[in-house]
Amino acid sequence: MQVPQVQNQIPLSLLDLQAAEQRIQKVIYKTNLLYSDIFSREMGTEVHLKLENLQRTGSFKIRGATNKLIRMLEAAAAKGEPRPAGVVAASAGNHAQGVASAAAYNNLAATVIMPLGASMTKMRSCREMGAEVIQFGNSLEEAAGRAREIGLERGYIFLHPYDDWDVIAGQGTLGLELLETLPGLTTAVVPLGGGGLLGGVALALKLQNPAIRVVGVQTEAVCPYLGFIQTGEYNHPAPGASTIADGIKVKAPGATNSAVIRQYVDEIVTVDDNQISEAIVTLLERTRTMSEGAGAVGLAAMLHHKIVVRPDEKVAVVISGGNIDTSLVGRILDFGLVSSGRALSVAIIIPDTPGQLVRLLNMVAALGMNVRQIYHRRGELHIPVGQTEVVLEIEARDWAHQTELIQRFAAEGLDARSLTA
Amino acid sequence: MQVPQVQNQIPLSLLDLQAAEQRIQKVIYKTNLLYSDIFSREMGTEVHLKLENLQRTGSFKIRGATNKLIRMLEAAAAKGEPRPAGVVAASAGNHAQGVASAAAYNNLAATVIMPLGASMTKMRSCREMGAEVIQFGNSLEEAAGRAREIGLERGYIFLHPYDDWDVIAGQGTLGLELLETLPGLTTAVVPLGGGGLLGGVALALKLQNPAIRVVGVQTEAVCPYLGFIQTGEYNHPAPGASTIADGIKVKAPGATNSAVIRQYVDEIVTVDDNQISEAIVTLLERTRTMSEGAGAVGLAAMLHHKIVVRPDEKVAVVISGGNIDTSLVGRILDFGLVSSGRALSVAIIIPDTPGQLVRLLNMVAALGMNVRQIYHRRGELHIPVGQTEVVLEIEARDWAHQTELIQRFAAEGLDARSLTA
Repeated sequence: MQVPQVQNQIPLSLLDLQAAEQRIQKVIYKTNLLYSDIFSREMGTEVHLKLENLQRTGSFKIRGATNKLIRMLEAAAAKGEPRPAGVVAASAGNHAQGVASAAAYNNLAATVIMPLGASMTKMRSCREMGAEVIQFGNSLEEAAGRAREIGLERGYIFLHPYDDWDVIAGQGTLGLELLETLPGLTTAVVPLGGGGLLGGVALALKLQNPAIRVVGVQTEAVCPYLGFIQTGEYNHPAPGASTIADGIKVKAPGATNSAVIRQYVDEIVTVDDNQISEAIVTLLERTRTMSEGAGAVGLAAMLHHKIVVRPDEKVAVVISGGNIDTSLVGRILDFGLVSSGRALSVAIIIPDTPGQLVRLLNMVAALGMNVRQIYHRRGELHIPVGQTEVVLEIEARDWAHQTELIQRFAAEGLDARSLTA
Repeated sequence: MQVPQVQNQIPLSLLDLQAAEQRIQKVIYKTNLLYSDIFSREMGTEVHLKLENLQRTGSFKIRGATNKLIRMLEAAAAKGEPRPAGVVAASAGNHAQGVASAAAYNNLAATVIMPLGASMTKMRSCREMGAEVIQFGNSLEEAAGRAREIGLERGYIFLHPYDDWDVIAGQGTLGLELLETLPGLTTAVVPLGGGGLLGGVALALKLQNPAIRVVGVQTEAVCPYLGFIQTGEYNHPAPGASTIADGIKVKAPGATNSAVIRQYVDEIVTVDDNQISEAIVTLLERTRTMSEGAGAVGLAAMLHHKIVVRPDEKVAVVISGGNIDTSLVGRILDFGLVSSGRALSVAIIIPDTPGQLVRLLNMVAALGMNVRQIYHRRGELHIPVGQTEVVLEIEARDWAHQTELIQRFAAEGLDARSLTA
């Protein structure tokens, strides 16, 4: 991949980040850094979760957008220039919401261009904050092109989602909060897409204590930064790569972010969609909070031991956002139930005669299992004529409970085959 | 219903609640009181959510259990008596987890009796905290009977979930936090089951400022306290009444709680299961946090205007717990998608010949809708021979989007009938 010229000069100091914190404090929440006894026990070290999914607008993006926007207004005022007519951004969701909210707070017009197929929930949310939403293009790149055009047409300022020092400084305020709340922090685990959040957090931590380890986590499907720290080269995503972590599906790293990451980040690791789904379900069950795919990659990396931690560490895992479509949540929960042994589908061939089905169901009921769905298959080559294959979708307690059922079927001479083991 | 003798003498002062707050502060989290711009806009007044679903163990119950237990140990120490051998409690979930956690913190053995059919997640969580879990009985009453027996057999102290002044004082610490964080509070909306939480919060608020309005919310299916403030009589739940708000499905109010509620609570309102489900989905989408049924009744009451608020109020709505089974979450989300117009099932009778199905699906795809499931019905009396009724389960943007589809079908001369409108 073409490597953009990396700027080695990083123009941000700790003072800039602290100034950003002052600037945005009235707009954002200082989100919880929740000590998790359960994850600490599981991982054998002290684990804290930065619940940025509970941030206003549901993600960290409001930090950078607000800092950028207020800085811009301050600069115009200092030069005696008029306020800009408005701001424009392209985004599939979180940046759009951050910009819409920051603009509303500063009484500025905002237009956000969202690619076709963007989440209806996120569009609605932007509109509720007073932004104009335009659907355009089949990709973020096409939407961004249109956003720049609209900027020129209307005299609106274009806000880049990550490749911007003021945005990075804004996201860095999350890093300042980490160290304020947990002064003994040894490792920070941060989702990585464009690199605004990771870059900002790395600056906030390393400029205060270079010994703190900073780890970025990408999704395996799209991980341009994998190996970048060592080689300075980006990794090519496969064409058409897809991931449930759409918030960090960024193919084109920015020059500013790359400079910070090269200099200040210690490790980049990746996780796959199944690991991300499990992390979303685990987080929901353990902390009662909802993460989007991109938000859960750090926890997924921890749960799957992609990051080696010592027993005496204090680890902060950033859950960066929670904007996920409700219909996707249902699918992820179903996946989580199956992958943790709490739901199964089992196929059993039985005589197609009265009383056979209830015999099966009695065995299921005797084990305290609930049936979600039943269907019958007939006329397939593996099913003898006069018999039927019944597929049962069942809720179980755990894998052991499933095994009990399969063994029970076997003991009754039934040929049962799990479709989900 | 038999009214137990109401104790008019309430032995708790503000000092007792403050002492409880000191006593339990190392064990519990001070949970967020989140200002919600979205709910404030919707309800035309300032709305804050007390996110007690993010409390350690996932509900407020740990407050009362911890206070009770430390008080007990302090009392034994003051009298020079030995520490009790352990504690025992009966609960379908949240109280069990509160007791298990409080016992673990104080290095006491804990046994919890959970009725058959109790949530596996909650059992697992109790075991992880070191408690012994025994499944016994078909109801909470039977489990409680067994718990008392075990208490006698082993010399364990029985901890009642709500009918206990130390428990009420512990739950009252949540009320202290409300007023600390939001001094101008005018109305508190609190879920009501046994009355420990409502009673404690009412004391915490009214003893500081009698002008603050305190509202309790019950589930329509089981609402013994409906009308109680006016009449002093409990309301009979129907036999076999069921509700998704199992955490507040309490048929037998306690004498202590009733005394506090009669004296200090202003209103009792009820919500039904559909309203509760909608509130759970809305909370998840708007705040990215998960509530259990019992936890969401306050928000449901607000969303359905069961509580009249003035525009200049500061309302705190307590989301009291988040312990809900993942399989139930999926069902509630499906319900939420349908009830908000984002999922539909539609039945269309078409000729049972090649090309007819794809014609339907083209119309669906043209509107940008995703198909979740298709099935065919044949051989029913309303379906002419040679035709088939196709049922499509589809994801839509909203009700208007659904209407577009139905109109499109009609324009093509198809007889489409929504099963979910």
